[in-house]
Amino acid sequence: MTLVPMQDVLAFIDAHRQRFVDELAEWTRIPAISSDPAHAGDMVKNAEHLIGLVKKLGATKTELWPTPGHPAVFAEWMDAPGKPTLLIYGHHDVQPIDPLNEWISPPFEPAVRDGRMWGRGVVDDKGQVLIHVKAIESFIATHKKLPINVKLIVEGEEEIGSANLDELMRQKKKELAADFVCVSDTAMFGRGIPSLCVGLRGLMYIEVHVEGPAQDLHSGSFGGGIMNPVNALAKMIARLHDDEGKITVPGFYDKVVALTEPERAEIKSLPFDEEEWRKSTGAPAVFGEKGYSTLERVWTRPTLDCNGFSGGFSGEGSKTIIPARAMAKISCRLVPHQEPEEIADLVTRYFEKIAPPGVKVRIVRLHGGRPYLAPTDHPVFEVAKRAFSKAFGKPTVFIREGGSIPFVRTIADVTGKPCLLMGFGQPDENAHAPNEWIDLENFHLGIKSAAHLYDELARL
Amino acid sequence: MTLVPMQDVLAFIDAHRQRFVDELAEWTRIPAISSDPAHAGDMVKNAEHLIGLVKKLGATKTELWPTPGHPAVFAEWMDAPGKPTLLIYGHHDVQPIDPLNEWISPPFEPAVRDGRMWGRGVVDDKGQVLIHVKAIESFIATHKKLPINVKLIVEGEEEIGSANLDELMRQKKKELAADFVCVSDTAMFGRGIPSLCVGLRGLMYIEVHVEGPAQDLHSGSFGGGIMNPVNALAKMIARLHDDEGKITVPGFYDKVVALTEPERAEIKSLPFDEEEWRKSTGAPAVFGEKGYSTLERVWTRPTLDCNGFSGGFSGEGSKTIIPARAMAKISCRLVPHQEPEEIADLVTRYFEKIAPPGVKVRIVRLHGGRPYLAPTDHPVFEVAKRAFSKAFGKPTVFIREGGSIPFVRTIADVTGKPCLLMGFGQPDENAHAPNEWIDLENFHLGIKSAAHLYDELARL
Repeated sequence: MTLVPMQDVLAFIDAHRQRFVDELAEWTRIPAISSDPAHAGDMVKNAEHLIGLVKKLGATKTELWPTPGHPAVFAEWMDAPGKPTLLIYGHHDVQPIDPLNEWISPPFEPAVRDGRMWGRGVVDDKGQVLIHVKAIESFIATHKKLPINVKLIVEGEEEIGSANLDELMRQKKKELAADFVCVSDTAMFGRGIPSLCVGLRGLMYIEVHVEGPAQDLHSGSFGGGIMNPVNALAKMIARLHDDEGKITVPGFYDKVVALTEPERAEIKSLPFDEEEWRKSTGAPAVFGEKGYSTLERVWTRPTLDCNGFSGGFSGEGSKTIIPARAMAKISCRLVPHQEPEEIADLVTRYFEKIAPPGVKVRIVRLHGGRPYLAPTDHPVFEVAKRAFSKAFGKPTVFIREGGSIPFVRTIADVTGKPCLLMGFGQPDENAHAPNEWIDLENFHLGIKSAAHLYDELARL
Repeated sequence: MTLVPMQDVLAFIDAHRQRFVDELAEWTRIPAISSDPAHAGDMVKNAEHLIGLVKKLGATKTELWPTPGHPAVFAEWMDAPGKPTLLIYGHHDVQPIDPLNEWISPPFEPAVRDGRMWGRGVVDDKGQVLIHVKAIESFIATHKKLPINVKLIVEGEEEIGSANLDELMRQKKKELAADFVCVSDTAMFGRGIPSLCVGLRGLMYIEVHVEGPAQDLHSGSFGGGIMNPVNALAKMIARLHDDEGKITVPGFYDKVVALTEPERAEIKSLPFDEEEWRKSTGAPAVFGEKGYSTLERVWTRPTLDCNGFSGGFSGEGSKTIIPARAMAKISCRLVPHQEPEEIADLVTRYFEKIAPPGVKVRIVRLHGGRPYLAPTDHPVFEVAKRAFSKAFGKPTVFIREGGSIPFVRTIADVTGKPCLLMGFGQPDENAHAPNEWIDLENFHLGIKSAAHLYDELARL
């Protein structure tokens, strides 16, 4: 098989630019809110719409994969013998739309303003799935074949925790076998900056329950004579960090892979405006672990945050009680090679050790997810950088994401192959908020990036 | 005026023992729940019932004092020229009755079991008001006169914070003028132990608000880069006590009057079963300020308790956020000569000082009340001890109460006279819980105690 001339493919993408945008608008009209049982029918319609799109593109296999929840779409183009196989992951479900009154244009009536398309799911993740579908179309239309083998898995439950994905990947291990994985569901570092995300933090989530008296007690009759569970829990939480932002749980950092000097230099080279970032949070100041920059802190360092706490009386006015109990939700963002279960063990043991006299401590484990760090020394990352840069005309940067996408680690582990996180969103795209948008230039250049990626992989 | 022979009075009390109990039952049947607007009519009926009782007893004045809320009852017997005037305080309103299904017999159908009368208000405070009314009746019936001048003020809003009492006391300062004050609304130290309460703790109550980002943030994208308000508040709360239970707010103890050795000896001499007390709380252990016994801690030492806190997510499951804000309700029980406003100033300043970087702290003051310590070197306390002991046949002890009854301090300040807290309840009387009861032997001996008090005051 000879390589196809890319200029034909790129010319096709340019020629059909507006039609591709129209197709994104059309798909966006289906309200595929996976969390809302009232939209279960729309989820099927949504998956079938995608199948309709790929069926026209000469896929060698097209399947709707049912799950106990919403169905996934699978398609493959296996007409490139001897060439590598790329597994592309995306999702067709979207976030809820509340609060609806904050949308400038209706979430499922996509509108174009300021070079952007506005609507629920345009960037998370329908637009990014469509980027690949349209890149595939552009090869098929111009050369009847793709330069590599491609498998596409688009699940319908990403916004509700991908509960059935692990089981599906286990069942379909053979169908999903590939040489490389590409996930397009992340954002670029900034406008026009091609960015490969090479690290994701993991997650460990627990509830801490502190129990004292059998029921709320009168703070006059008993105050001063027994340990107050709210005070006790506060005291324990306070002992989780030192004043310089370091986590004080013994062993917590033992397995943390230190940043290398080249990694630090790369992060430092990014055009990061810390004051702009702070303003976007509304917080009066940045704060974090001593010895690290803000980007290093949120991308590469583990955290321990109380996601909430409650105990006693917190309504209007005053109630003079010693509360019977208190509770905190505590989660850690993890970095390689921290394991959620091990960190949960360490935190549990520490809480048991520092519990003050007069209360009982009970830990409930919620969920966890393992961190991901891409093997960036693998040659495929240079290939991906080149492809991305060809489309955007700028050097591609490695970035990380402070959040967790546990299935990336699962896909990487199940396939044993490098996972490329090649995203086309923007940091302020309102993915989970009202007024979600996709930059239409990014959408266009994204299709070219995907096309270049397939072409470059064929040359690997 | 010659003193009357007490044996006639005591014989009358013995002879009418059952009728007095029946009268308590009758008054208890009126559901005088001051907190429930549906019972506003019952509150008036309840006050009028009391007026009906005292009108039969030759009062020189009987008045219903309206307030913006529920009415108070005032009566006076001023037929003892040259003798001291005693102002007796009580209240005719009662606590709510929830949870109703936990009552063994209905709250407003008083029942006698095990030598106790069970019903809402029997001890808090109708029974204790009636103790005085029946002592007065016993003098009037046997000698047509009281040995001293007596004024009775029975308010209708004690269970809802006595909101109108201060204003009433200001308006009626002349009517309420007296040489001594007696409040019968507390409990004895234990069964058969005549007890004068000589100290009440005061109260300072604030809300602490900690504000960080403008809204809840994604803990992945931002975690590690900004201060978490829930962690920050926990850290501040943790700095309010040292590990030995001492409050670390600078200046907090400056005005605390130290316990004297005789006071400590008196407290130590009481038959206090600490393990029994701990069991009653359900807490796994007692805990408190080092260097003090449990009774000393709850009666004579100031406290700082979180009455509750909240912030972020505390529902079912997991939500990975950095909360925008956190709040704690914090109250201090105060001892002489701590002033609520001064302590609020100290705590506020301390919070502002220890606030970690990256959050804002805002304090809202709720209410306060001043502590009370009786001038026990005044001879009237020996008189009261003697009267109480004559009725119960046992030495009278001085006790304190960890809770706050701000109006006691107000009455003491307004009248400038010593306030006798002569209570006839029991610590486990369920005053604010289902199945409130009064020991009928205490009720009977209480009437005798009151009679002895009037007689002894006449001899002062």
